[in-house]
Amino acid sequence: MTGRILVVDDVATNRIVMKVKLAAACYAVDQADCGEAALAAARAGRPDLILLDVVMPDMSGLEVCRRLKAEPETADIPVILITALTDRASKMAGLEAGADDFLTKPVDEVTLLARVRSLLRARDTARELRQRGEPALGFAEAAATFAGQERPGRIALVAPGPKGAVLWKTALDDRLGGEVSILPRDAALMGVGSEEGEAPDVFVIAADLTHRNEGLRLLSDLLSRPATRNAATVMILPAGDGERAAIALDLGAHDILYDPVDAQELALRIRTQLGRKRQADRLRASLQAGLEMAVTDSLTGLHNRRYALFQLDRMIARPGRGVAVMLLDIDHFKQVNDRHGHSVGDAVLSLVARRLRAQLRTGDLLARMGGEEFLVALPDSDRRAALDCAERLRASIGETPFLVGGEVPPLTITLSVGIALAAPGSSEAGQSLIDRADGALYGAKAHGRDQVTLSPLPAA
Amino acid sequence: MTGRILVVDDVATNRIVMKVKLAAACYAVDQADCGEAALAAARAGRPDLILLDVVMPDMSGLEVCRRLKAEPETADIPVILITALTDRASKMAGLEAGADDFLTKPVDEVTLLARVRSLLRARDTARELRQRGEPALGFAEAAATFAGQERPGRIALVAPGPKGAVLWKTALDDRLGGEVSILPRDAALMGVGSEEGEAPDVFVIAADLTHRNEGLRLLSDLLSRPATRNAATVMILPAGDGERAAIALDLGAHDILYDPVDAQELALRIRTQLGRKRQADRLRASLQAGLEMAVTDSLTGLHNRRYALFQLDRMIARPGRGVAVMLLDIDHFKQVNDRHGHSVGDAVLSLVARRLRAQLRTGDLLARMGGEEFLVALPDSDRRAALDCAERLRASIGETPFLVGGEVPPLTITLSVGIALAAPGSSEAGQSLIDRADGALYGAKAHGRDQVTLSPLPAA
Repeated sequence: MTGRILVVDDVATNRIVMKVKLAAACYAVDQADCGEAALAAARAGRPDLILLDVVMPDMSGLEVCRRLKAEPETADIPVILITALTDRASKMAGLEAGADDFLTKPVDEVTLLARVRSLLRARDTARELRQRGEPALGFAEAAATFAGQERPGRIALVAPGPKGAVLWKTALDDRLGGEVSILPRDAALMGVGSEEGEAPDVFVIAADLTHRNEGLRLLSDLLSRPATRNAATVMILPAGDGERAAIALDLGAHDILYDPVDAQELALRIRTQLGRKRQADRLRASLQAGLEMAVTDSLTGLHNRRYALFQLDRMIARPGRGVAVMLLDIDHFKQVNDRHGHSVGDAVLSLVARRLRAQLRTGDLLARMGGEEFLVALPDSDRRAALDCAERLRASIGETPFLVGGEVPPLTITLSVGIALAAPGSSEAGQSLIDRADGALYGAKAHGRDQVTLSPLPAA
Repeated sequence: MTGRILVVDDVATNRIVMKVKLAAACYAVDQADCGEAALAAARAGRPDLILLDVVMPDMSGLEVCRRLKAEPETADIPVILITALTDRASKMAGLEAGADDFLTKPVDEVTLLARVRSLLRARDTARELRQRGEPALGFAEAAATFAGQERPGRIALVAPGPKGAVLWKTALDDRLGGEVSILPRDAALMGVGSEEGEAPDVFVIAADLTHRNEGLRLLSDLLSRPATRNAATVMILPAGDGERAAIALDLGAHDILYDPVDAQELALRIRTQLGRKRQADRLRASLQAGLEMAVTDSLTGLHNRRYALFQLDRMIARPGRGVAVMLLDIDHFKQVNDRHGHSVGDAVLSLVARRLRAQLRTGDLLARMGGEEFLVALPDSDRRAALDCAERLRASIGETPFLVGGEVPPLTITLSVGIALAAPGSSEAGQSLIDRADGALYGAKAHGRDQVTLSPLPAA
């Protein structure tokens, strides 16, 4: 699917010139000749990007931009304002209104197309992250794991010399709430961000440092290293160097500015990048929470059956003394539910899960298979170790009555356990081991419960 | 965290020269002076990348590479072989052995560092995708939704003229199983990939097409468009043009080759890229399946409670005539379980879910809240529409007995429904609407079940 771009200009010739440039780059072009038409076309056609003239008779481009950014349906469409060269006030107002960039007439083709590519890439990345992460935003875990949201933004400035950097910093300190620091190039690559989450949110980098293009190489370097690859980057280029600005955007810079830097403009652009970075961080955190949820049993917080089956097969494939699989079933659990109600039953399940977990090592697998049945898998374990562990688990449940609170008397709960062993290098599937453990569990139940039974090895 | 690179060479001077180059780029450097030491250092230190000399006294670099790629613990560490300029056989053997690239002595610093950045970036992307997607690989859904895996790879060649492209194609047709096609630049951008999943897996692109650098711009363009941004890309550069090769890698090219193209080398590199692309596609599909799982009730396939709460708040925020929320509870469901067992109960829940779904529109929300309770939310609905719908849902369950198969007689099941309405522009939270619907449901139960009750509007 090729990109669709909406060109908004009240002068037909301007629209046609723009259309020719965009069509040569294989974009489909829609046109609108006034502000109202632009809003209608944006709502109806959902273009991938909008090129918006500032001066129009019916409504200024700034107002159009403000309305587009205020409506949920059109807010994520990137907008590039087309302004007159000298109209600084409009440019700043445009950035305030949410425009992603402005270009001055006559529009340079190379810069225009690089900017379009960059914005479409950023839009798609954000959209994909949102589609995946948003359904998970309801998860309480997402909010809890995302601790960083309220801290002030961290801005790092990498300039050719201390003088330039101090100028930028002074200008920003007045205008941004965040923490602005000056970094030499090596510190940007090495020192900062050695702890996860401590890396700057936004890097502002001059294209040329000690050597020409050193800033561009630093950009590529930062985007290739784990601690900084999700950072936002703003490149500062010498005035008029549209060609390298285009390269910077294609290399992955999120925004560009020309020297001499307008402090207000820099602050506005940083603020926009900071907002996007945070939104992306938040979505990544909720995506992670959503995925964890997919492999977790919500009542006990243990892994679920699906995850257990997957991990068990991996565990069997690893070298070691062999794998022991146990199925553990709470005896007469139905009576707990019938006598004391489901909420007491749920409380017992949670407490059982906690006691089992306390008996196991870090690398052991513990999952709730459903109802009152749990699975334990021990890597690198032989018969003796498996039997010892199973007895320990059984005793941890049966020896101490459960206190669930309220008016409920202490509950004595027992556990039956079936074990199956996979010899080292066994090719037995996880499901087959579970089936054998289930057979052994059946034996433990049949012989009076509250006991451990070992499955015979399968016939060769 | 800065990258750690293992330099393997039996000549100390070579190691030192390499270390100086890498340290200047702020990488930490480990050293090994023979094959055995390299394997030990790779296993123990898990470096981020390995630079591996081919000719060593104890073990050839090819053998070291083969062993690294065969062990799960070290298989995903990128390996760059360092070879003599003229040793074509070793280069091909190196690619066959799983090396990610080879560089010839003396190693050019710019190309080396660009290649290192590119490999570290690819490794991190793959690792992140794997960490997220792999736990979900157990999901049957992942395998089912990923239909594309077994089809042959699609390779697209974009060359300056028909002659060069035909040469490449002929060379590849003999060596690759996939489908190799020649594309003009515009077709690469527009025609192909108009349907999702139809885009080529690998693009092979000459750096210069009709115009100089047109291929590099095409690369940036492809990586910025949704249909092609996950494709693998191999750039072909004029012999000796290391500077632009470095730019191509930093722009996101996955691999590079120099003219005149060695057909065997091109085929080997394409095969490697194709394998990685497929692995990534598979992980993306399982990631998607995992996320869907997190918002789905596994028994009925409906959305779960968590997702319902999230979507409901979004639905209330949208403009329209108002939102109607219903809680639906199967009457005397415990009797079904007690008389016929849990498997019959589960079958009834699934059939109820299916009948409810059949009565609803696409934009309506249907979720299982737990046990025998369901939630329906209707966007853009008033009191009349909500009551009509609720009656339809109640009738769809109560009027036709359920046939669950086996020896079980037809089961007559009825449904009680409580409704709460949010007026247009209401600021009531989703949970509050649900609580009111729950109150109404309680009323329906108290008045004899199998009926619909509407909650009074909340006091202003």
